[in-house]
Amino acid sequence: MELDFMKLQPAIEPIHYSDGVLRALDQRRLPHEEVWLELRTLDEVIDAIKTLAVRGAPLLGIVAGYGVLVGMHEIIRDGRRLTGEEFDKIIARIAGSRPTARNLFDTLEKMHATFDNSSSDECNILKASDLAKSIHDTERGNCIEIARNSLGLLRGNVITHCNTGVLATGGIGTALGAIQAGYSAGLVEKVWVDETRPLLQGARLTAWELGRLDIPHEIICDGAVAGIMAEGLADCAIVGADRIASNGDTANKIGTYGLAVLCDYHELPFYIAAPGSTFDLSL
Amino acid sequence: MELDFMKLQPAIEPIHYSDGVLRALDQRRLPHEEVWLELRTLDEVIDAIKTLAVRGAPLLGIVAGYGVLVGMHEIIRDGRRLTGEEFDKIIARIAGSRPTARNLFDTLEKMHATFDNSSSDECNILKASDLAKSIHDTERGNCIEIARNSLGLLRGNVITHCNTGVLATGGIGTALGAIQAGYSAGLVEKVWVDETRPLLQGARLTAWELGRLDIPHEIICDGAVAGIMAEGLADCAIVGADRIASNGDTANKIGTYGLAVLCDYHELPFYIAAPGSTFDLSL
Repeated sequence: MELDFMKLQPAIEPIHYSDGVLRALDQRRLPHEEVWLELRTLDEVIDAIKTLAVRGAPLLGIVAGYGVLVGMHEIIRDGRRLTGEEFDKIIARIAGSRPTARNLFDTLEKMHATFDNSSSDECNILKASDLAKSIHDTERGNCIEIARNSLGLLRGNVITHCNTGVLATGGIGTALGAIQAGYSAGLVEKVWVDETRPLLQGARLTAWELGRLDIPHEIICDGAVAGIMAEGLADCAIVGADRIASNGDTANKIGTYGLAVLCDYHELPFYIAAPGSTFDLSL
Repeated sequence: MELDFMKLQPAIEPIHYSDGVLRALDQRRLPHEEVWLELRTLDEVIDAIKTLAVRGAPLLGIVAGYGVLVGMHEIIRDGRRLTGEEFDKIIARIAGSRPTARNLFDTLEKMHATFDNSSSDECNILKASDLAKSIHDTERGNCIEIARNSLGLLRGNVITHCNTGVLATGGIGTALGAIQAGYSAGLVEKVWVDETRPLLQGARLTAWELGRLDIPHEIICDGAVAGIMAEGLADCAIVGADRIASNGDTANKIGTYGLAVLCDYHELPFYIAAPGSTFDLSL
């Protein structure tokens, strides 16, 4: 299958970091308004995480990295010295913002390792900045690799559940990246977007991303998916994952298991798209 | 199974008719407010039907009967003579209020047959009133019979979808009547109430009725039902029907088919509760 994967671009870049300021697309206001937050203090970053202005496990991992930088710049702007104690406080405060997101803790552990008490503030910020950007780049690359590995699996009318695009990952997405690649290769025709109760990440976010990407799509309430299958209007389903155990058992947004059972009943392929970091081999 | 079915009462009586005035519980405002509409003109009755203040096929059949009476009283109150022409206009206007509800047309055909041009206005109103009340009584009786016939089928934790109680039927309900009987007999423990997207009849109306009946229940989004089954937290499912074909194929609110497939996969009994009038033997 010939496809230039590097040409696949996400619907939008929801996070822009520069010189101690993190600009973030406010996901609470989508799809009705595109409002950008300018996060200049640690408090503002933590508030954005807590109130779900930014969300999605991989994206939270990226935000945590830039969030540490915002906190470091804030201290220097206040005329204080960036001591190890101050640095640890930044890490601890971000760690307390969302108890469930594993990616966020991963990032914080890595960021913590960059700090050296004997280095200059400038040097510590430089090392932290390099790492935060590299975490962002890694997530982008993961998405492209998922799309590359999945090309050819998806065909025709594809069902997806919840949001797995750039708003969740910082890259072209996991399941949504695979869909985008399939559509670009002329294999995918249309996407059925599950509404995804109770918080409507499908209807609000996935449909918005697909709209910006000009990929044909239709929102359906979660209960409608079985009828769509029975009428032969769906060819396969693909979703992301919150965590995957060593035996392949997968945890994901409520409704995923039912979708898988319905695919089984209607003899349709059901795929899960996730990066290696989603596997928890301790389980 | 010993149970005094005549002691089963619905959560509320959503319709009260008396002397040309129809009082109706405004279902658009539930569950947050219990607002009663006083419908004194044909316009008001038609508006209540069109805006879903009253809904549910059997209840619409009942409302149509009382609605004709409201229209008849209105004409006399205005000092006009209740001619056959005026009567036909009332029937036609109610018939135009909701193109889909078969019960509404059934009622209007029956009401039409009560009118006699050579009778006095008083006599015509008396005949129409008797018929409207008998239609209401018949629906109440249908519900009791459904509950009687289904007793013993439902056990433990029961899943239901959409609203099939007094708000939809004017009696104790079809599926919800069967649940109430099962609970009263000590067989049903708890009800899982599907939210029922897109209009939330389960979360708004069924949960409200179960609350008034003091029957233990929990609202779940439609996508959660498969997980509930997989964890062994459900023992069976029962729903109503919009129409049943002669081969048993059943049309009902979106999400019903998926629920049936999920029951099949998890080897749980799945029941449909409906009166004989729901069968369309022409199909």
